[in-house]
Amino acid sequence: MTITITAFEQSPDGGKGLARDTRVRWALEEVGQPYEVRPVSFLAMKEPAHLALHPFGQIPTYEEGDLAMFETGAIVFHIAECHAGLLPDDINARARAIAWMFAAVNTVEPPILELANARLLEGDKPWSKERLPLVADRVRSRLNQLSARLGDADWLDGAFSAGDLMMVSVLLRLRLSGIVDEYPNLAAYLARGEARPAYKRAFFAQLAANAGKPSTG
Amino acid sequence: MTITITAFEQSPDGGKGLARDTRVRWALEEVGQPYEVRPVSFLAMKEPAHLALHPFGQIPTYEEGDLAMFETGAIVFHIAECHAGLLPDDINARARAIAWMFAAVNTVEPPILELANARLLEGDKPWSKERLPLVADRVRSRLNQLSARLGDADWLDGAFSAGDLMMVSVLLRLRLSGIVDEYPNLAAYLARGEARPAYKRAFFAQLAANAGKPSTG
Repeated sequence: MTITITAFEQSPDGGKGLARDTRVRWALEEVGQPYEVRPVSFLAMKEPAHLALHPFGQIPTYEEGDLAMFETGAIVFHIAECHAGLLPDDINARARAIAWMFAAVNTVEPPILELANARLLEGDKPWSKERLPLVADRVRSRLNQLSARLGDADWLDGAFSAGDLMMVSVLLRLRLSGIVDEYPNLAAYLARGEARPAYKRAFFAQLAANAGKPSTG
Repeated sequence: MTITITAFEQSPDGGKGLARDTRVRWALEEVGQPYEVRPVSFLAMKEPAHLALHPFGQIPTYEEGDLAMFETGAIVFHIAECHAGLLPDDINARARAIAWMFAAVNTVEPPILELANARLLEGDKPWSKERLPLVADRVRSRLNQLSARLGDADWLDGAFSAGDLMMVSVLLRLRLSGIVDEYPNLAAYLARGEARPAYKRAFFAQLAANAGKPSTG
């Protein structure tokens, strides 16, 4: 059955790989599944046809036969559950890899989203300059803990898993802030993620789709 | 095998059910699994023994035989995967229920966490009064979409699932703000969640554990 995902017709980052379709492309590349992409405009995203697929009017969505689903973490998990390569076989190691998937989106990403909001939505507010360092420190408090846990390991728990895929993807959102570079082991962890052939294929696929389109974010 | 979870020795909410152990207790009650609770103090949470279980120094954790894991969403998913009652048998419906679990923690909860931070961490800042309505509106933009999707259904996608358990738990954090009451169908959805016998058992168990201990949050 053909897998079809949606992506921004014109990504706000101009193709830097930060839109969430990159996470799903990466997962599909890791497990070697071909996929098609249906681009969606910002206007179409808020219209009934897309809202029927994605109640929050975002991308990506995932369609395969009778299945239509949304939410990046769930799509990556579905891919990992259906194909070998992203979750360990050992049942306890599998549960821990899933823990890292949730930790990426529910523990590490929220302060990163808050920092993005502080920049994008409140950058022109009178409190912006004084407030930004407070929010950045909330990100650092998470990265301190993540860095301590990772130590000098290559990946968060044994072999590369969907947990690493999600964590690397979340940390990549911090690239422009320079905060990850304060943690050499996390910077090396990101570099290991980006060096994976599957990541590169995903990154260049979304870059090509955005080629020649101006960045708006 | 005995299931042991950790919870605050003294919950910051004094037992209002907002600490994340309530989500795990609720899941265990839904599937009828007994469990033990090991209370952890704020100090002990940041010490090596607990950090080995939970790299971010939080509660809850979950131990069962050889398995030790952290992160509420992952623990609830693990319980749902191992016991009947929280995920549908149909494979597509199961994927959609998991989508709602991730939507709860990665799409709906982040602006709610931001609102909590605005109140708890920045309530004394000079920008607090002007900024709070902006953050509350970010919560509303999600709830508008969630309310539209729920419509007059009882649960998000067919029968009650772990997706509803997580979404109700996330929305309960808004109780004091009054924002959920602006959406009668979401308020009724919350009330349906709270009316479940398993939720009540979980709520009163955590309340009893915090009885007589002063609220700090």
